[in-house]
Order: sequence, then C-alpha cells, then structure tokens
Amino acid sequence: MTDLAALKAELEGLAIEDNPQIVRQKSRDFFWYSPILKRQLEEVTGDLVVTVRSEAEVIRVLKACYARDIPVTTRGAGTGNYGQAMPLSGGVVLNLAEMNQVLEISTGAVRAEAGAIIATIDEAARKSGQELRMHPSTSRTATIGGFIAGGSGGIGSINWGGLRDFGNILKLRVVTMEEEPRVLEMSGEDLHKVSHAYGTNGIITEVEMPLTAAYDWVDVLVGFDSFADAARFGDALANQDGLLTKEIAPIAAPLPYDYFLRHRKYLHSNQSVCAILVAPFAMDAFAAFCGRYADATVLYRSDRASEEDRKTLPPVSELTWNHTTLRGLRVDPTITYLQVLYPFPDHIRKAVQLAELFGDEVVGHLEFVRFDGKVTCFGLPVVRYTTEERLEEIMRIHEEHGCPIFNPHRYTLEEGGMKQTDEVQLAFKKEADPKGLLNPGKMIAWENPDFDFSSRQTYLFPGLAS
Amino acid sequence: MTDLAALKAELEGLAIEDNPQIVRQKSRDFFWYSPILKRQLEEVTGDLVVTVRSEAEVIRVLKACYARDIPVTTRGAGTGNYGQAMPLSGGVVLNLAEMNQVLEISTGAVRAEAGAIIATIDEAARKSGQELRMHPSTSRTATIGGFIAGGSGGIGSINWGGLRDFGNILKLRVVTMEEEPRVLEMSGEDLHKVSHAYGTNGIITEVEMPLTAAYDWVDVLVGFDSFADAARFGDALANQDGLLTKEIAPIAAPLPYDYFLRHRKYLHSNQSVCAILVAPFAMDAFAAFCGRYADATVLYRSDRASEEDRKTLPPVSELTWNHTTLRGLRVDPTITYLQVLYPFPDHIRKAVQLAELFGDEVVGHLEFVRFDGKVTCFGLPVVRYTTEERLEEIMRIHEEHGCPIFNPHRYTLEEGGMKQTDEVQLAFKKEADPKGLLNPGKMIAWENPDFDFSSRQTYLFPGLAS
Repeated sequence: MTDLAALKAELEGLAIEDNPQIVRQKSRDFFWYSPILKRQLEEVTGDLVVTVRSEAEVIRVLKACYARDIPVTTRGAGTGNYGQAMPLSGGVVLNLAEMNQVLEISTGAVRAEAGAIIATIDEAARKSGQELRMHPSTSRTATIGGFIAGGSGGIGSINWGGLRDFGNILKLRVVTMEEEPRVLEMSGEDLHKVSHAYGTNGIITEVEMPLTAAYDWVDVLVGFDSFADAARFGDALANQDGLLTKEIAPIAAPLPYDYFLRHRKYLHSNQSVCAILVAPFAMDAFAAFCGRYADATVLYRSDRASEEDRKTLPPVSELTWNHTTLRGLRVDPTITYLQVLYPFPDHIRKAVQLAELFGDEVVGHLEFVRFDGKVTCFGLPVVRYTTEERLEEIMRIHEEHGCPIFNPHRYTLEEGGMKQTDEVQLAFKKEADPKGLLNPGKMIAWENPDFDFSSRQTYLFPGLAS
Repeated sequence: MTDLAALKAELEGLAIEDNPQIVRQKSRDFFWYSPILKRQLEEVTGDLVVTVRSEAEVIRVLKACYARDIPVTTRGAGTGNYGQAMPLSGGVVLNLAEMNQVLEISTGAVRAEAGAIIATIDEAARKSGQELRMHPSTSRTATIGGFIAGGSGGIGSINWGGLRDFGNILKLRVVTMEEEPRVLEMSGEDLHKVSHAYGTNGIITEVEMPLTAAYDWVDVLVGFDSFADAARFGDALANQDGLLTKEIAPIAAPLPYDYFLRHRKYLHSNQSVCAILVAPFAMDAFAAFCGRYADATVLYRSDRASEEDRKTLPPVSELTWNHTTLRGLRVDPTITYLQVLYPFPDHIRKAVQLAELFGDEVVGHLEFVRFDGKVTCFGLPVVRYTTEERLEEIMRIHEEHGCPIFNPHRYTLEEGGMKQTDEVQLAFKKEADPKGLLNPGKMIAWENPDFDFSSRQTYLFPGLAS
C-alpha cells in the first residue's frame, strides 16, 4: 500500500477527493494573472483534497500526514494571485472552505471559522450595524482565513492600514504540524508569526477580527482629463480627515472605458477615473469637496442611479484592486500587472513620473491606503506584457525610482514581500512544522537559508523541477 | 421708556432675566483661564438674558433687537475660554441652553437643537451603538451649538481631524439678524460661513452631526521617564493605523502628579504620562505595542481597575485638553496656558525642543490630532505666569520656532485663529447681520477693516473702553 493509500484508509470518514481533474482544479488559484507563474506553476497539482469540517478533523489530517511525511497545503477559496495555495510538492490539499461558520458577533469584533466567506461575515455583522474593516475585491468568494494567510489589505485600508498592523487581526487559533498537533491561541505580537505566511507554519482554523460601523456605501466614479489630476484629487480626498470614504482608486485612461464594460455608458475613452466609496451621510461634503476641483466630473453615483443600474452594475468595489486587473484580463488576456508601493511623501510625484515614463506599456492604477500612519498609494498598474525579461526590467526601473515592488510574479513569501528573511515566521516554522511539510517551497528562508536576496536571482523551488 | 424696557415689553412671555448679578454670571465663560482676558473682560456684562425655547422665539428676539439696535450675544453653556460668549457691548445675552432636544438619530447622523448637551447627545446615540466623532473635555456641560460656534476639535480629533474639516458637521440651521430674520439650511461649503464664528454672523439653532461607532473606551495612563519619550510613544501610537484610540495626550512631569489628585496613587512626581483612550477590543494589541517600548509603564487601565476606582476616578477624557489646565488652575491659580500647533513632520522635535528651551516655565502638554491627513500634535502647555510681557514673549518665541500660536489670550476670532481676515465669514456677516449687532467686537475684519495683523498689536474693541 502506498503512503497515499494508507493515508486515505486512515482518514476514512473524512471528505476525500482523488479524482485527478478535480484535485488539479482545487490545486490552483489565480496564479495565471502572472505569465511567469503561469509558466512555472501550470502543472502543479496535489494528490488528494481533504475537505475538513472541524478543527478536530484538521488535527486528524495533520497528525496522519506528519506520520507519513506527506506535505499539506491549505486552501480557502483559491482567490490568491501568487500560487499561495498551490501544492508545489503535491500531497494533500487541505480545503477549509467548509469550516465556514460565523461563530459570534460582539461590539467591535467577530469570531468565525477560517473558511467563512468574507461577504458572509459582513452580512452577519451588518445585523448589528457593523462590518469588517477591510476586505479584498474578491470578498464575495474569498475566505477570511485565506485573506489573513495570503492577503495584506484592500478596500478599507484607506482608513485602517493593512492586516500586518496591530489591531487589524484580534485573535487566531492555529494548529501545528507535529506528531501531536497543538492548538495555539494567538493575539498581540504573536499574530505576526502566522499572518501572511501562506500556511507554511501552522493552519489557521478560527479568527477573531475587529469590526467597524457599517454603512450603505455610495459607489462613485469621478472623471478627469489626466491620470495626474485623478491621482492628485484622490490624494487630497484621502487626506480629508472628516470625509469618510472606504476606497479611493485612480485608474488611468483608457482602462476604465476599455475594461469596465457595464459602466461604459458613463465613461469616455480619454478619461481617467477615480473609483470611490463614500459614506452616504458624507455625500454633501463630498459634493462640496468635488466643487473645489474644476476638472473633476462626477460621472456616476449609485445613490442617484436608476433602480435598474443599481441592480445590474457591479459594485465599485469590484472595479478596484485586483478586480481592475481581472476585468482587464477578460478583455485582453495578454496583459498582466505589478504591485508597487509609492512611498510617502513623494507618492504622487513618483506615480505620475513612472506613468509618464512607460506611457501605454504600463498604465496607472493606484489604491490609496494608510501606511504607517500616512496616506500614500499602492499601485497595481496594468502591464502590456511582451517578455519576461522586459517585465523584470520594468520592475527594476520602478525600484531604481525608489518604488518597492511586491512582486506578484513570484510564489515565495520573501520575493513577493520584503525580499528578506522574516525571522519571526521562520522561528515559528521551526517550532510548529519541524519536518517542513506545510506548503513546501514557499518560504525561502526554510528551504535555502543561504539564498542571497541581493542577487536579484529568482528562487526556484527544487520540487517544482522534479 | 428705555429701549431695554421696550424690548422687555415686546418680548413678554419669554424667559427674561434682568437681575444684574445673574445677568453678569450668565455673561461670563471660562475667560479667566487667561490672566490677560481676566483683566480685560472682568467687568463685561449684558443687560438682559433671554432664554429661548424654540427657533420661533429666537426669531422673535432677533427681530425685536434688530428694530432697536440692541446687540445680541449667543450663549450655550459658557464653557468657552476666550470670551466667545461675552457681550462686549452689553445688550441681550441669548441663552440657547434650553433648546436642548435630541431630535433624530439615524445611521451615521444625529440631529439636535443647538443647546443640547454633548454628553446627552452621546447618551441618546449610544442606544444605536453610535457616538459623536469628537467632543471637548467639557462634554458633560458644553452644548453642541457652542462647540460648533466656538470650538475646533478635541477628544476624537486623533481620528477625524477638526470641526473645520469637510464632513465633521453635516447641516446647520441658522437664523439671520435682519429686519425679517431668515432661517437658512446650510451644508457642504456653506458650513464654513458660520462654524467657529462665535455667533457673529447668525444664530445656529439646529445641527446635524456625523456619528461613528460607540465603544466603552478604556482609560489608560502610561508613564515615562521623560516628556520626550512620552511624546515619541504618543506619536508612534497615533500612527498605528489599526490600533483604535480616541485620545492620546502626553503630559510632562510634574503636571500629572501635581494636578491629577485623584489618580495620584498611580503616579510619580518625576513621571511624564500619556493619557489615552483605547477601544476595548484593541487592548491586546495595545499591550503588545507597549511591549515594544522598554521605557513605557502602564500605570492605570480602567478595564483592570477596582470597582471603586472605576466609580470614583474622573474619566481620562477629563484629564486632557483644557481639563489639564483646569485641574492645574485648581491647584495653582497663578498658572495659565498656550495653544500651539507643532507642524508635521517636525512636530515631535519642535515640541521637545521648546519644552527643553523653557524648562519649568512652560511645561509640555500635547494632544495628538489628525491635521490635513497627517498625525501631528497640538499643544496646550502650562505656563508659570509672571507678566503679560513675558507671556507675549513666550508666544513670540514659539512662532519664531515655526510653531503657530492660536492665542487663547485674545477675544477676537482672528487673533485667536489664523491672524487674517476670513473673507467667507465676513461676507456672510455683511449679508446676515448688516447692522453688526451679533456678538460685537469679536470679528476685527468687521469692526476695523484696516487693522494690520502683521503689526503684532493687540486689537482692543472700542466698546470695551466705554
């Protein structure tokens, strides 16, 4: 009996899938946004998908896999873009999507199982007038555990910063990959051990997240003659301390007209657009603010739209962050994108400078966020892709201009992040996953402690070649 | 029959007070925080106090006073510190304290009469899980209309900026001082006409203010060996985007020990203190954040205090803003204070530099706020007062160091503010108070259009000398 056959026998009673086509489908995420990851990861697949329904089942799977040295890669809804949930060494794909209960809502906090859909949590919280502080543009499909393990921020980050910031995650329950898996409760400083670690050093089974006041956010699109005007308007709006918004995204022409097909009647091909969510009670103030910008034209506001439009148009939140890219890919599958930080206080100047430098090859898309207490912008520009070499060059030029790239064309934690070892996460992996069985190949510091991040070499996980 | 006697006759049925002692008491505010204003305004008194109970009564009073050229100075609870509500030319003190109804609470907004007590509004809003965004330390006595007409921000401004910012006031109803008084509804850009205008160009009768999520804020005092350490800690905390606080005030030794008598058992005379309000669900994150500062000692947190302490100690909000000064004045009536802006990004360096420059003569007290989108600090340092000349010199030295003074030792709008004409407020006064009968002597631009703000001369209202 092979190890896998023995594992299946041992896990009898759990929901196990071994149909290769389904397993392959459940081994993928949105890695194909990147032509580089598409080439590298296309053939990646696990051997089995185990869908767990309780923490006890998670423990049972981990214990069995530990005993047989079988890798375990955890998956929520698979909406990540960097192969976070892809099992580079095969083995078990641990599907948490059915551990999806919202457990408790209190003032300022929600407790939920890790596989709960973000929009479902928001819907439950809304009954108490509350909602999550931030969510990705994929909130209707993404799980809260996947967001914490593989994401960094999104809609709402203009008010609250990112998941990495103290206070944006309250508590996590984490199961370790040991002979006898332990269940740890983490809060405060400990949260940094496992958040944004792609499930490489523990399995998040339950989360407690802060809530904030819920509003019926008004979707707004404002048009500008130039991307620079849209960027400056967005920056000024984001710095209005009393004018409550949840999302501010300047997107350069011609992307809005070309990609936002269902909003097209409101758009012009030569207009850059700011996509904004505004609190309903702030609309008078917002209109007054817009009045100070002669070049700002309010193209669409959902509070004044027809019943028909309100029902049928996608929400503005699904025009922003990586939904901008996704809508672009539907129109033109050859594009790709970057993730750039334009550091405060030169963020607008740099964003505009780089947009001008690349012209139509790299088209601007900014997302305003709070970052270490300041309003700055993150960018997800659309790239008219030609070759891997040129894509690397474009990223290098951004970094030469002082704009760090969070590389979405790499599948490792470090290359997609700070390009250095995260000692806290590494130390916790040594403790919680001593055999290195959790999501192999994603943490370079574990796989190859001597890797030289300054070399600009891409890390290639040996397992991928085998 | 004198004009006043005729007025009284005409206003029959309204609540009119003409007992000179009571009128004098109702003609005063907390101007005596300033030794200069104390000298200048000590003898100021109105002739009558009219306590109105409805907008119709306000209109009736204004119409009658307009016809007889009798000045009208509006008053809420009289908690201002600059003589905002003091009738420099006598006449009618229009008391709005009994127009105090909370009218309507909706998601994100509250509508109330101008004389409603701020704490009463918060109590009503709390039933829906909401509270006002910001309030002065005097919220238990101050009226919302007085805050808008005479204040600028306070507890909560660390999240929302000041009242001047778009979105922090939603709507105002304003009655003009004309032959036929008009009732105007103002929102958006118009709000700047009458907010922080001391009632010089219209009477605010009703307000609509934004609400935010209400929490049972935890009172925290953190001790430091030096004021500089407390200031740096406060700045770092204020820049934590995910760690929800409502108030952060570093106060230099020996003020906390000397002035916060009921908290004294928690304090040491050589410790500087950060007085903080933290959201209850953020306490784990707050403790983790404190753990990163070796020199930070948590001295008091209300969520772990005894029942007795929680009942009897004043809330931390009543240790901050001008309650710090008030507690100081109770211990040592010879002190006074300043109002300083330490501009971003050099705010900490400048605050520490000025504290060191003056030593025990000017003792540091900072209040972190958002100002044009950045975290910076406002200061209300305690001054060991000697002479008016030295006080002026201390203020000059602050301005020479690039730290603007919002002078709390002047009774005019301009001298206490931006030291320039506010053209919007002036234009509206010409329209809404053509005879100049509203709160005379407070708007220099109206009284003396040729006044030279660059001269550093103090404006002296002629009416005061008469």
